[in-house]
Amino acid sequence: MTNVAIFGAAGYGGIELIRLLLNHPEVTVTYLGGHSNVGEELTDLYPHLLGDLQVEVGPSSVPEALADATVLFSALPHVVGASLVAEALETGAKVIDFSADFRLRDPAVYARYYAEHPAPQLLAEAVYGLPELHRAEIRNACLLAVPGCYPTGAILALAPAVKAGLVEPRGLIVDSKSGVSGAGRTKLTLGTHFAEINDSVNAYGVASHRHQPEMEQELSFEEPAQVTFTPHLIPMTRGILTTAYARLSPGVNREQVEAAYQEFYAGEPFVRVLPWGKQPATKHVSGANRCHIGLVIDELARLLIATSAIDNLIKGLSGAALQCFNLMQGLPETLALDRPAMWP
Amino acid sequence: MTNVAIFGAAGYGGIELIRLLLNHPEVTVTYLGGHSNVGEELTDLYPHLLGDLQVEVGPSSVPEALADATVLFSALPHVVGASLVAEALETGAKVIDFSADFRLRDPAVYARYYAEHPAPQLLAEAVYGLPELHRAEIRNACLLAVPGCYPTGAILALAPAVKAGLVEPRGLIVDSKSGVSGAGRTKLTLGTHFAEINDSVNAYGVASHRHQPEMEQELSFEEPAQVTFTPHLIPMTRGILTTAYARLSPGVNREQVEAAYQEFYAGEPFVRVLPWGKQPATKHVSGANRCHIGLVIDELARLLIATSAIDNLIKGLSGAALQCFNLMQGLPETLALDRPAMWP
Amino acid sequence: MTNVAIFGAAGYGGIELIRLLLNHPEVTVTYLGGHSNVGEELTDLYPHLLGDLQVEVGPSSVPEALADATVLFSALPHVVGASLVAEALETGAKVIDFSADFRLRDPAVYARYYAEHPAPQLLAEAVYGLPELHRAEIRNACLLAVPGCYPTGAILALAPAVKAGLVEPRGLIVDSKSGVSGAGRTKLTLGTHFAEINDSVNAYGVASHRHQPEMEQELSFEEPAQVTFTPHLIPMTRGILTTAYARLSPGVNREQVEAAYQEFYAGEPFVRVLPWGKQPATKHVSGANRCHIGLVIDELARLLIATSAIDNLIKGLSGAALQCFNLMQGLPETLALDRPAMWP
Amino acid sequence: MTNVAIFGAAGYGGIELIRLLLNHPEVTVTYLGGHSNVGEELTDLYPHLLGDLQVEVGPSSVPEALADATVLFSALPHVVGASLVAEALETGAKVIDFSADFRLRDPAVYARYYAEHPAPQLLAEAVYGLPELHRAEIRNACLLAVPGCYPTGAILALAPAVKAGLVEPRGLIVDSKSGVSGAGRTKLTLGTHFAEINDSVNAYGVASHRHQPEMEQELSFEEPAQVTFTPHLIPMTRGILTTAYARLSPGVNREQVEAAYQEFYAGEPFVRVLPWGKQPATKHVSGANRCHIGLVIDELARLLIATSAIDNLIKGLSGAALQCFNLMQGLPETLALDRPAMWP
Repeated sequence: MTNVAIFGAAGYGGIELIRLLLNHPEVTVTYLGGHSNVGEELTDLYPHLLGDLQVEVGPSSVPEALADATVLFSALPHVVGASLVAEALETGAKVIDFSADFRLRDPAVYARYYAEHPAPQLLAEAVYGLPELHRAEIRNACLLAVPGCYPTGAILALAPAVKAGLVEPRGLIVDSKSGVSGAGRTKLTLGTHFAEINDSVNAYGVASHRHQPEMEQELSFEEPAQVTFTPHLIPMTRGILTTAYARLSPGVNREQVEAAYQEFYAGEPFVRVLPWGKQPATKHVSGANRCHIGLVIDELARLLIATSAIDNLIKGLSGAALQCFNLMQGLPETLALDRPAMWP
Repeated sequence: MTNVAIFGAAGYGGIELIRLLLNHPEVTVTYLGGHSNVGEELTDLYPHLLGDLQVEVGPSSVPEALADATVLFSALPHVVGASLVAEALETGAKVIDFSADFRLRDPAVYARYYAEHPAPQLLAEAVYGLPELHRAEIRNACLLAVPGCYPTGAILALAPAVKAGLVEPRGLIVDSKSGVSGAGRTKLTLGTHFAEINDSVNAYGVASHRHQPEMEQELSFEEPAQVTFTPHLIPMTRGILTTAYARLSPGVNREQVEAAYQEFYAGEPFVRVLPWGKQPATKHVSGANRCHIGLVIDELARLLIATSAIDNLIKGLSGAALQCFNLMQGLPETLALDRPAMWP
Repeated sequence: MTNVAIFGAAGYGGIELIRLLLNHPEVTVTYLGGHSNVGEELTDLYPHLLGDLQVEVGPSSVPEALADATVLFSALPHVVGASLVAEALETGAKVIDFSADFRLRDPAVYARYYAEHPAPQLLAEAVYGLPELHRAEIRNACLLAVPGCYPTGAILALAPAVKAGLVEPRGLIVDSKSGVSGAGRTKLTLGTHFAEINDSVNAYGVASHRHQPEMEQELSFEEPAQVTFTPHLIPMTRGILTTAYARLSPGVNREQVEAAYQEFYAGEPFVRVLPWGKQPATKHVSGANRCHIGLVIDELARLLIATSAIDNLIKGLSGAALQCFNLMQGLPETLALDRPAMWP
Repeated sequence: MTNVAIFGAAGYGGIELIRLLLNHPEVTVTYLGGHSNVGEELTDLYPHLLGDLQVEVGPSSVPEALADATVLFSALPHVVGASLVAEALETGAKVIDFSADFRLRDPAVYARYYAEHPAPQLLAEAVYGLPELHRAEIRNACLLAVPGCYPTGAILALAPAVKAGLVEPRGLIVDSKSGVSGAGRTKLTLGTHFAEINDSVNAYGVASHRHQPEMEQELSFEEPAQVTFTPHLIPMTRGILTTAYARLSPGVNREQVEAAYQEFYAGEPFVRVLPWGKQPATKHVSGANRCHIGLVIDELARLLIATSAIDNLIKGLSGAALQCFNLMQGLPETLALDRPAMWP
């Protein structure tokens, strides 16, 4: 049994993690730290937890949090949580960080998209928490960076083809469609006001979104990848559908592509490659720590069109964190995660 | 470990039951019987189950179904499944029936709302599967009738007050708002076409809906209850919010009402009475086998306004079925059901 | 041609009025006054008006507004706009006020639900802007109070029966289901956050909502009416469906009820009584200045169940304001308003 | 005043046309012909038209339809309506056809995507009804083909750049997100069932959709265009957002792109090019015969990312038809069409 603490417990990432952990046979949540909700009862903020968890949100204090716990999940905003992460690591605790702070290996890239890096000394030991690419390092990680939601969908859609050299690593186009929960709970804006986003869709952050360098970093195998990324907000609560376009290398055919994806994901507990031509839907993975992938080739354009569907709050956030936790603790990777989507 | 068979496996009730059973440590699903989908792969119908269950839908044949199983869940439409239920019971199997066939004790009432009763000889042994009212009988049941979704919400909202004599059992008004999944998956109509129901709401079956006599039957304690029932279809997938109005008996005050609800639901694992004045939302119970109840008194009108929220496919259908199954099998009542809602 | 000014132009009421007025052949909008958006381009706030109206939001200043205009639409919040209304009236302008300030005739009732009345001296001349009840007074009004959205739906559903003495004026129950736009644009709350209200429904303000006394005032014909009001928020943008329950007076039958509604609404340009038993849907009136009404009798309970559907921002707000404006200006009542709903 | 007849009046295209024509000062609708709804009252099918139009749906018979009318709008499915179109043209009537039958100039291409062409002899005289490209021909057209909804969005987004040679006409990628009304009303499928598409998104017809050759035809100016097209279904009723990717020709910069779009759409009544970097949303044009266009350059990838938003049933269908009708009749092009979106 492992005792864990959660910072940023009252955001969507924190609360989804709590839901998953309530069903985890090897975890006890011993501390919830908040940001703006210190002193409030968790069930006042989240009545759906009535009867599950009678606990007050405490301050995001490392000594208090780690009094009983040995693993800290930090779901605080980027920059804000970095010094706490450093403090926690110094005590010997393991840290699983939901923010962008430890995803990018190059602090210069981080600085371009976020801010001066708050703890560059930790970058060397941070591990990017995508088990499908970094399972071995994750098992040994003390500081784990949970991948961004969009990058998770994009990387899982493209990595097998890029890694196998079946497509050009430059000129990749990632067109993603996300539900509104990706915007979080804390900052209320007109853009997440029901009356304004319901029955509407728009692109945002076109060719300038912070998740683009993360995709490029993880898709750079032999050669550096270059990605054009267009996120869209669509009127649904959860889910990201990613439609990725990649130029096929000369001579590459469907059989090679299909084989590469089957091989890459052979044995992966949470990724399913659909039969050729079938398309994933976000509802097929809503509520599940899964990724479904669809493959099509446009022969005339010599393009691979790979689509992926994830639940942005599970495989794209809290489920991924828990999957990594299981690996870091030497537990079965699928513990508390092996459930299908809720349908409909 | 119990082997179970499911008829009507490809409807929303069946598929939700399968999802819940996948997580049940004491159950193996050994047979899936269908209606219109015989011979199809379940995962062709429901890609969200890819990797969970590789099985073909068979015919709804009792001998085939009970070759390995000792409990039959029948989610076939009313009348259609009744003879199969009878056939299954004769073999000594237990049957949990999702249809309306065995909910109403009086076949004349059934005939008025549905059809000539297809198996009246079984009515005497059928148990109405609402554990909050009939737990003892459920434990001993061989034929269990899963309550209707609307009645579940209405009865849980009103039963404590009616039973305690705090409100008049006549003149009850039940105004319910249901998500679209309640209409099922089989019959596609304009009324469930996204473009027509999205951003709209309407009442239907006003004062003539089949679930009304079920509410009256179960709310008749000392005296016969009389209910006016108005269901509404609203643009959401899951959930029923019920707003129930009942005339307070002379002299009754808030303290008495609150005490009656607290007492009635003391120890109930799946019903939460909210602090006075707080209102439930269907999202608070979406994905959970739970019912949240809110209470308000309009003193001037001398009305109790009791609201309840359930997930129509879980506490209102498949979760209720599983809760009863657990009781019938002598298992812990909350097995595979003790999870909070998914938020958001 | 009439020049009009609008205060609170950047709220949903203001912007919907602007849309309607753009199509009005006898109106020129000469001034837009704001609250928190002074100095901003209207099309920066509302890109859907690109090319229609290139204008900056000015301060809510009466002299500036009435420099060119003779009618002021004030869509400012209650209390906030009252002194400006008084100032405008003194100049001889006509004022159409969207707030609650001049709806209730009794300042004591206003004080109970809102605040000390900011301009009680104006109450005597204010006219309640529901043409179906007060057309003659509206024609002569200088100060018009636009009815609340919920009261419009409730009063239109019940007035014919109550006025004709076919139902008891006490013990009325109004159960309303509203889209989220009713909450306005200015105050962003978790309750209007897409991720929290999508796929959910809840009651609020049960038996304590401010619109209740407005319903009672307007439904008091021979005798004082008494209403229990339960509003609900449902996941759609526009529309209110009202389900109203009233106890039939002894001996009253369907024919009498039907005749009363047909007579009451004979010649009304914007109210349609549906064939007996048919139910209105909010989508049938979405985008239209219309009200559809459905009627059912529950004979056993001796209840009339009258349902009404309106678009809360048109017949429930800006369309009603324009309908009254047309009457006050001696124009055809349906000018710029005679359009059906957009379907689907 | 022109008398017009409509075939396929009971589909979404027909009913939206009727709504627009009700407000057209120079048109009288004299005949409604149906497909599966002959003999039904239009208001039984569409209660939102109660009081507007009391008319029975007749057969799709050309002699009956053209007894009083001189223009026929045919909204029948492709192939089905072609012989009626031919018959109507022979009488000297003008025909505006909503189907795909007369959009593609090459019957071999038509045959590849649809069927053997039912009336190839008419292709020479058919005009593609996109006024922004073909206004002069439209003025003189007798047979007008209303463009497909996806092509309208894609062509308007890309044509200025392609025509000016600023981007490569090959390797164009069109990633579109459509509301569900695009699937029509007649064929009910699981894919349009509220419970299945709500809160979900998926691609379909990837690299094989029928609208792709239409885009290629209209984007072939100097050189043949080649388009990879990926449509997606998203949970909203109306609207298409198109995200188009095109490779910039060497040396092309932002100023040239901006100038090309401004020039191309100068004077266009229904297209607005947004300020550089601003993104359109479908809600900004919902209910309007408009197209909003946003432009971004990804300098590193040397890609132009052009986004467009339309209402698929108006600028993408019935509004376009009416715009062409106005041109064909020598009426002001904006008659009955010059209204902004409904907000919110």
